[in-house]
Amino acid sequence: MNKKLNVTIWNEFYHEKNNEKVAEVYPQGIHQVIADGIESASKIRTATLDMPEHGLTEEVLNDTDVLIWWGHMAHDKVEDAIVERVHQRVLQGMGLIVLHSGHFSKIFKKLMGTTCDLQWREVGEKERIWVVNPAHPIVEGIDRFIELPQEEMYGEHFDIPQPDELVMVSWFEGGEVFRSGCCYSRGAGKIFYFRPGHETFPTYYHPQIRKVIDNAIKWAAPVARPTPTYGHAPEPLEKIGQ
Amino acid sequence: MNKKLNVTIWNEFYHEKNNEKVAEVYPQGIHQVIADGIESASKIRTATLDMPEHGLTEEVLNDTDVLIWWGHMAHDKVEDAIVERVHQRVLQGMGLIVLHSGHFSKIFKKLMGTTCDLQWREVGEKERIWVVNPAHPIVEGIDRFIELPQEEMYGEHFDIPQPDELVMVSWFEGGEVFRSGCCYSRGAGKIFYFRPGHETFPTYYHPQIRKVIDNAIKWAAPVARPTPTYGHAPEPLEKIGQ
Amino acid sequence: MNKKLNVTIWNEFYHEKNNEKVAEVYPQGIHQVIADGIESASKIRTATLDMPEHGLTEEVLNDTDVLIWWGHMAHDKVEDAIVERVHQRVLQGMGLIVLHSGHFSKIFKKLMGTTCDLQWREVGEKERIWVVNPAHPIVEGIDRFIELPQEEMYGEHFDIPQPDELVMVSWFEGGEVFRSGCCYSRGAGKIFYFRPGHETFPTYYHPQIRKVIDNAIKWAAPVARPTPTYGHAPEPLEKIGQ
Amino acid sequence: MNKKLNVTIWNEFYHEKNNEKVAEVYPQGIHQVIADGIESASKIRTATLDMPEHGLTEEVLNDTDVLIWWGHMAHDKVEDAIVERVHQRVLQGMGLIVLHSGHFSKIFKKLMGTTCDLQWREVGEKERIWVVNPAHPIVEGIDRFIELPQEEMYGEHFDIPQPDELVMVSWFEGGEVFRSGCCYSRGAGKIFYFRPGHETFPTYYHPQIRKVIDNAIKWAAPVARPTPTYGHAPEPLEKIGQ
Repeated sequence: MNKKLNVTIWNEFYHEKNNEKVAEVYPQGIHQVIADGIESASKIRTATLDMPEHGLTEEVLNDTDVLIWWGHMAHDKVEDAIVERVHQRVLQGMGLIVLHSGHFSKIFKKLMGTTCDLQWREVGEKERIWVVNPAHPIVEGIDRFIELPQEEMYGEHFDIPQPDELVMVSWFEGGEVFRSGCCYSRGAGKIFYFRPGHETFPTYYHPQIRKVIDNAIKWAAPVARPTPTYGHAPEPLEKIGQ
Repeated sequence: MNKKLNVTIWNEFYHEKNNEKVAEVYPQGIHQVIADGIESASKIRTATLDMPEHGLTEEVLNDTDVLIWWGHMAHDKVEDAIVERVHQRVLQGMGLIVLHSGHFSKIFKKLMGTTCDLQWREVGEKERIWVVNPAHPIVEGIDRFIELPQEEMYGEHFDIPQPDELVMVSWFEGGEVFRSGCCYSRGAGKIFYFRPGHETFPTYYHPQIRKVIDNAIKWAAPVARPTPTYGHAPEPLEKIGQ
Repeated sequence: MNKKLNVTIWNEFYHEKNNEKVAEVYPQGIHQVIADGIESASKIRTATLDMPEHGLTEEVLNDTDVLIWWGHMAHDKVEDAIVERVHQRVLQGMGLIVLHSGHFSKIFKKLMGTTCDLQWREVGEKERIWVVNPAHPIVEGIDRFIELPQEEMYGEHFDIPQPDELVMVSWFEGGEVFRSGCCYSRGAGKIFYFRPGHETFPTYYHPQIRKVIDNAIKWAAPVARPTPTYGHAPEPLEKIGQ
Repeated sequence: MNKKLNVTIWNEFYHEKNNEKVAEVYPQGIHQVIADGIESASKIRTATLDMPEHGLTEEVLNDTDVLIWWGHMAHDKVEDAIVERVHQRVLQGMGLIVLHSGHFSKIFKKLMGTTCDLQWREVGEKERIWVVNPAHPIVEGIDRFIELPQEEMYGEHFDIPQPDELVMVSWFEGGEVFRSGCCYSRGAGKIFYFRPGHETFPTYYHPQIRKVIDNAIKWAAPVARPTPTYGHAPEPLEKIGQ
């Protein structure tokens, strides 16, 4: 098993530079704090919006097993050509972990085929993330719930396809629920959406949140096998028309 | 479409006779109040634990399109032979709607293959049942959530198979969440588990709760088609071994 | 139940005008033969690629409960603005039935988020469509399989998301299998992909194929309920922070 | 990752002693040949029907991470108490891999809640097992299909719950299809049903079949986490009734 996993963490990296409150929580950027929490990777890269090609060159993506995505205020600034490139890589097997406000990223909406819309409220209320599938490798080491004293609320209806596997559901102090841990297969790739991680709260320092992300990296790792054959198959495998 | 639907409502019918508080809420029994809320049935029967064969004779079951099940304190008093009979009818196409504490009924556990265990608390807290699948016919006419001022709490982990379709998720004032509207296909039959309905609260008088049950009856109605062929199929459909 | 259903059948309508063999089988167009087989609609419209806005104006779509889609050689000629319009309508509740080569239509790929690629062979081999979910309303009246003496082969891997419900799987004489009846919910809409229907074979005259399409129309009908609320929800439903 | 995995292979072990043809193919028993193909286990035990407690003592099961099950002619001879013990262990996290005719074992039927019936034919026809989910770890190293020159036919309808993940579908020379690779979560345990392996054919010597079983062991390994809390939870996590 022990696969060597190359992980690339993509972060918009705008809030941290434009908002003092965010800068206090994530002075080097959300991507650096996420990187500090990862134990299962053999190589970790970070990439941000302002880098050439947003840091997601063909070379980088072809050397990435699992891509983590955090974005919020500048989804529209991500070039369609790069989104297309990431989309193709996911369908070819690269794992993708979409965090929090990444629900509205171009890549997530393109993969889901829905609006990915939801309800939200930003008052710093309590969130309790309940495990609903205790057999899933993504919750290894996680107790029956993870409690976050302050988070942004995301509430249903969350306009996503029914997850192939629903792993976690959030309770919010203000009265809403949310499907917070959602697994999908698309093409040869696996996708995990994980809700928590508002930029003004220290969520990505939380050891249980870090554990979920680390588990998700292992779960989303590519499956080594031949690429499926598509297109014209003129020769039947069996004799036809006896 | 307009199918003629024969519905049988099964109720343990013990609490109502042994508990004044319950008798006040459901003087004629929970089954009668559920019956009063059904609009989609062409015939409604009720059956209770103390009737011969628990009211679930071959004749009754063979004339039932959808069976509704409410039980709590006397699950063990239901005879295994009757459970086996209901199980066979469901697999042959009869719809089954399991309500609230029916999660621990022999028939539901037999169909699920799991313990169907959960957490519970009986302090009369607020429940808000959120719709997570707005495309599902079971939520026709239902707004984004149903609010119940007082209910028993059921909390995750709910030990059931992942639903084929998850339609509703509950929020509880005390801090828990629960998968409250769960759809399954088993054999030729459809099963809907619907969480609310503690015996001391007037939940089954609530028009939105009644609407969900009425929708579920239509959804769970049998599909008219030949019974699948099983067993030895000696003659191949195609020539073999050229 | 008996809903009034307005059905619109969209057909590219090119093969029938450019290929004698197709014209012989479908002289008035595939859409007319599909229309002739529908019993559950209260109104049937047809629309084709060469009509203004491809016949899919706002007015038409807003008055359509279920849209049927057949396309093949001119997927790229469908304007993105119209695809976007159909996409929005599906997410708002309009049912969509995608037939055969429609797997490569812009609208299906946009809703699935995958390539929707597959293997194909056009030698007119035998197909046997097996029912794998006998409880599903889409197979009402269908026996254990539907046999088509001659069809185009579509083979796995079919690059689609795992269906919410897999209803039918095809066997092909040449040695392949295919997931032929696939149900999805997206937003408030329901989508059914149904494999058979190559333009050179009289598949849409087959009574069992017509029955499946008619069942699918009823299954995919919109669910009458309030549109979900999305976006900023500043007021918590509960008091926060005691 | 590299977990130490203790695997127990349970085989009825009757055919091999009572049928010359089977004895020729599996002289030491099917369990030994399956054992020879496993690379991912740190310890492999075998257990058979005639052993005390069928070789499935509390001690053995408590030290088993993944149990493999092959049975056919003597399902009824398996004691209910042992079935109950295995059932509890699966729900507590032990992985279970059910092979071929194990579809009719007491443990599989108990976990599925359905008849698990199917069609079968024993003429030694060709089977081609197609991969329909290329992202799944169970097909790591497997090409687009596995071809077996001679196998028993199993055909739809296979009366099982819709798999949480459908990984493989079989084509049979005689004209049928079958869902051959089916993944389920039940309680804290994972279950994989894998179709091939008739006692008169050398299927378990096939390197690709062995690879699938080895992958399934890794996939089904228990998830290390606290056991969920069930039952009465008198103390709300939040203040109630402001």
